[in-house]
Amino acid sequence: MLSTKGSVSREVTRLRSRKINLSVIGQYVDYLVDKQGVKNVFVNGTTGEGLALSSQERKQLAEEWVNQGKKKLEHVIIHVGALSLPESKELARHAAEIGASGISAIAPFFFKPTNKGALVAFLREVASEAPHIPFYYYHIPPLTGVKICIEDLLDGIKKQIPTFQGVKYSDTDLLDFAQCMDKYNKEQFLLLYGVDEQLLSALAVGATGAVGSTYNYLGQANNMMFQAYANQDFALARKYQFCIGEFLSFVFKLGFGVAQTKAIMTSLSGIPMGPPRLPLMSASEEFITKAKAKLDSLPFLTTYPAK
Amino acid sequence: MLSTKGSVSREVTRLRSRKINLSVIGQYVDYLVDKQGVKNVFVNGTTGEGLALSSQERKQLAEEWVNQGKKKLEHVIIHVGALSLPESKELARHAAEIGASGISAIAPFFFKPTNKGALVAFLREVASEAPHIPFYYYHIPPLTGVKICIEDLLDGIKKQIPTFQGVKYSDTDLLDFAQCMDKYNKEQFLLLYGVDEQLLSALAVGATGAVGSTYNYLGQANNMMFQAYANQDFALARKYQFCIGEFLSFVFKLGFGVAQTKAIMTSLSGIPMGPPRLPLMSASEEFITKAKAKLDSLPFLTTYPAK
Amino acid sequence: MLSTKGSVSREVTRLRSRKINLSVIGQYVDYLVDKQGVKNVFVNGTTGEGLALSSQERKQLAEEWVNQGKKKLEHVIIHVGALSLPESKELARHAAEIGASGISAIAPFFFKPTNKGALVAFLREVASEAPHIPFYYYHIPPLTGVKICIEDLLDGIKKQIPTFQGVKYSDTDLLDFAQCMDKYNKEQFLLLYGVDEQLLSALAVGATGAVGSTYNYLGQANNMMFQAYANQDFALARKYQFCIGEFLSFVFKLGFGVAQTKAIMTSLSGIPMGPPRLPLMSASEEFITKAKAKLDSLPFLTTYPAK
Amino acid sequence: MLSTKGSVSREVTRLRSRKINLSVIGQYVDYLVDKQGVKNVFVNGTTGEGLALSSQERKQLAEEWVNQGKKKLEHVIIHVGALSLPESKELARHAAEIGASGISAIAPFFFKPTNKGALVAFLREVASEAPHIPFYYYHIPPLTGVKICIEDLLDGIKKQIPTFQGVKYSDTDLLDFAQCMDKYNKEQFLLLYGVDEQLLSALAVGATGAVGSTYNYLGQANNMMFQAYANQDFALARKYQFCIGEFLSFVFKLGFGVAQTKAIMTSLSGIPMGPPRLPLMSASEEFITKAKAKLDSLPFLTTYPAK
Repeated sequence: MLSTKGSVSREVTRLRSRKINLSVIGQYVDYLVDKQGVKNVFVNGTTGEGLALSSQERKQLAEEWVNQGKKKLEHVIIHVGALSLPESKELARHAAEIGASGISAIAPFFFKPTNKGALVAFLREVASEAPHIPFYYYHIPPLTGVKICIEDLLDGIKKQIPTFQGVKYSDTDLLDFAQCMDKYNKEQFLLLYGVDEQLLSALAVGATGAVGSTYNYLGQANNMMFQAYANQDFALARKYQFCIGEFLSFVFKLGFGVAQTKAIMTSLSGIPMGPPRLPLMSASEEFITKAKAKLDSLPFLTTYPAK
Repeated sequence: MLSTKGSVSREVTRLRSRKINLSVIGQYVDYLVDKQGVKNVFVNGTTGEGLALSSQERKQLAEEWVNQGKKKLEHVIIHVGALSLPESKELARHAAEIGASGISAIAPFFFKPTNKGALVAFLREVASEAPHIPFYYYHIPPLTGVKICIEDLLDGIKKQIPTFQGVKYSDTDLLDFAQCMDKYNKEQFLLLYGVDEQLLSALAVGATGAVGSTYNYLGQANNMMFQAYANQDFALARKYQFCIGEFLSFVFKLGFGVAQTKAIMTSLSGIPMGPPRLPLMSASEEFITKAKAKLDSLPFLTTYPAK
Repeated sequence: MLSTKGSVSREVTRLRSRKINLSVIGQYVDYLVDKQGVKNVFVNGTTGEGLALSSQERKQLAEEWVNQGKKKLEHVIIHVGALSLPESKELARHAAEIGASGISAIAPFFFKPTNKGALVAFLREVASEAPHIPFYYYHIPPLTGVKICIEDLLDGIKKQIPTFQGVKYSDTDLLDFAQCMDKYNKEQFLLLYGVDEQLLSALAVGATGAVGSTYNYLGQANNMMFQAYANQDFALARKYQFCIGEFLSFVFKLGFGVAQTKAIMTSLSGIPMGPPRLPLMSASEEFITKAKAKLDSLPFLTTYPAK
Repeated sequence: MLSTKGSVSREVTRLRSRKINLSVIGQYVDYLVDKQGVKNVFVNGTTGEGLALSSQERKQLAEEWVNQGKKKLEHVIIHVGALSLPESKELARHAAEIGASGISAIAPFFFKPTNKGALVAFLREVASEAPHIPFYYYHIPPLTGVKICIEDLLDGIKKQIPTFQGVKYSDTDLLDFAQCMDKYNKEQFLLLYGVDEQLLSALAVGATGAVGSTYNYLGQANNMMFQAYANQDFALARKYQFCIGEFLSFVFKLGFGVAQTKAIMTSLSGIPMGPPRLPLMSASEEFITKAKAKLDSLPFLTTYPAK
């Protein structure tokens, strides 16, 4: 399972022609596996700008990641959420057909489900199109405004959605998160934490996996934090979290989003991630310079002993 | 142009099979024209659940409205906004091809434009796919969270988007709205007001048109209010606004949204609007009964002298 | 009553010693009456920084305004709202003793009343300390976060609070405001509108009075707008609203609050309003220069024909 | 210092006559020390309804707590924050005079400081009235809306406020909290965490003390959690946090605030805490019954081995 290792939200890579650039995905997979120690990916999510792509583009990317990931990645989870239920269902069917390891869907957020019943009804329709692979709910209330309590959502969910396997939990409500860990861990639901800047605090209440944008370029440091925590070396785990926090706190003040993540990733990996798609605007040169300098000042995050 | 008459956000009509029901659009057009005095429609917007449909469904509906509206409607504006720029562009091209009177787009709202430049860049890409028909920006910050000041947006907009013709203004910021009326009315931009419950307050600062969900079933009453205002009969205009407000205030307290609008419309017009699509849930029978009773208690809104 | 004339939120005038400067109140009264045509004042409200003063200071100011206003002002309403009920009650008793025309109270907003019952219970305790003078509820949800529907609040309010006379309505919810006008105007409740930048839109649904910070220095222009509206000269009323809006829209973009209002008022009236109290910081010289230049560019607002 | 033990926000105890009931404070002190293992108290804070009291009442309570706490409590910190700077200063002077261990102030929140400079200027005025005892900033953005980053606030704070000693940190922003721990722990600032339902997550990033309402009645359980964490027995620490979370999650869904805390505290301690003050309304009997039953179902929280 995804346990004990940070998975990754992955970058859509695109050429200047504004078309998606499938040709770099293979290189991207190798970078994640070899350099970041990341073997599980979450495709077409927030960092991947999935919702800014056409259905056709989402399918192409999904296929390329599944194909390139074969024998190299452990899990390739495809995000198939959409505002439109028929589009989401079509993407779910497609993901199943191409051999994805699992699918995930965000709550629809133009019209928002106003209670658990409406959300589950929507998700069930999506999940049932891929009845043989696991389904993950992508919980990200800061972006969707859909704040349904996950402790409630999980209650009886297997009866409604037999393939339900877990939650990508991108919220700071650690009371709810902890209650989920307490009650539903035994049912082997995976609760993958998605607020990178406070991962250690989620580990403290039992998180066993994580999915987030920083794992694209700080995957190794996060894996070290996971390992330190597992070894009960809290001073070391804290040192990693503080260092990661120092970087994130710095870039947040400069203005940080998917476009900036993409630029940092390009700069660190050498793989051309391309510009973001409108309405996002490319990160400024000034941002890139400052962010790079900050990372350079934190060698603890990026330098590892030879094995 | 759309001036002096309320246009209409129109209902997506769907069968129980959850497919859209194109066969009732003709009847719907006749109802709007004959019973509600509405000759301008805004297709695939919020009330029409445009963002909950697949691109294919949006195209089918657009075509049917354009075809059925020929010789009967004055303007059929197709909403082509989407989170994904390529999808939005494709819908814009399609609308132009089928002979729509104009197109409109909402701001993307998963990734949100953070300044005027990003929003205009996005809208320009969409508008340029339909270079011979007018473009309207659909401003609805309560749903999108995109609060870019329209007075600023309009400054120099024609240079960026030559087909720019106006704004569907669904917000309560009457300072901004009034400043737009003051500065840009001369350029013949249309500012169509979209907060039905305070239309009279927008008329007071110069609004000349409106687009909203209530005009589906209270179009006639709103036209009477427009006319009373134009005749400087303010007591009468106020009477209409108070009556409409009394109904809306009542249903808002019961819980009111697109599903409830659809149910009221079915009940009043006799045309089967069908259920909403997930994540919306159908209005309860209790809601329909209460809303209907409230409307029946306000005959002023629905009864007109024989002509 | 306060009808047809804008009342005024008045400035706390303070010396550099950070003590309140009572000696300018007399001059202030004359300025309002003679230059701005304002004869009703709302003392110790938002603009007057009432909640930043000690109880002792609030009492001193109330006394001075009542004394200086005798024979000159029509109504002197003292704001006695406070987070602490006993302090609010004491201020209410004091206002009654010194001969204020009425009292008003904001909703407590650290602990917020969560329903109408809790709010009315609090207000009743305050109002009952001044049983022979009118009580006004000061509704300002953008600052308090207390959004109780005023249409509901007014239902049966006289039984709970016999001295209840009206609402200072500082919110943009014109549906609620209009419903109040429709239902409760007959009971002679006064609904004094408090969002200066959209006063004309409130007049359109029946507002007959206003209380706001701009009436300190644009009282005359607002009185002209009231008069134009009463004369059914809507083009002229609109011209005033657009002009006022142009000024406010301009200063809002620069950053506008009570400190800036105070500086403009000092600049226009020549009366030293003094600095604001912490946590407010004095307006910058740059702001004052720009705001003054903007006003100078709008002579329509400040120049009137000789009578 | 307050390290390693949960301090307590304490209840204002009042009689039916709506006067504060000073006579139970002695009993309250004994209960906290003997039954809850709490030796540090935070007087007149949120749970104590400090802002709903008159200045006179706040002084009386402060005196009683200081007097009763002598020889029994380690620290009695008096909250002296107020919307009005002169009132806050007067309370600070008073606290110093009566021998309080320290003072604390919330950010003013009607007029809100818009940057660090304005906030520090306000706090400095308050702290300087008690120049020989430590000052703590009370950071509680969910109630005040003042979200100034504490990492920034602490930078250079000792030069501005020589008595500055720490922060009561009642917010969920664990990135900011962790950065403060990392950078300012060496300067021996105390960062007392105040979101009880996620205390363990704050411990994971270095918190060494806590102040919150639940420590009134679950002080012992929280002390056990602190101790387990210090002993590196994470399974046990987690068990405490899960159990506390289960209780809080349950009561939050019923509607939970200061009035409900007071009722639970009365029920558990046998000390009559009295009703809350308006605008708060007393907890319902139904709430009390359900909350009590829930606690009874969690004996782990309230039963301890004989020593």
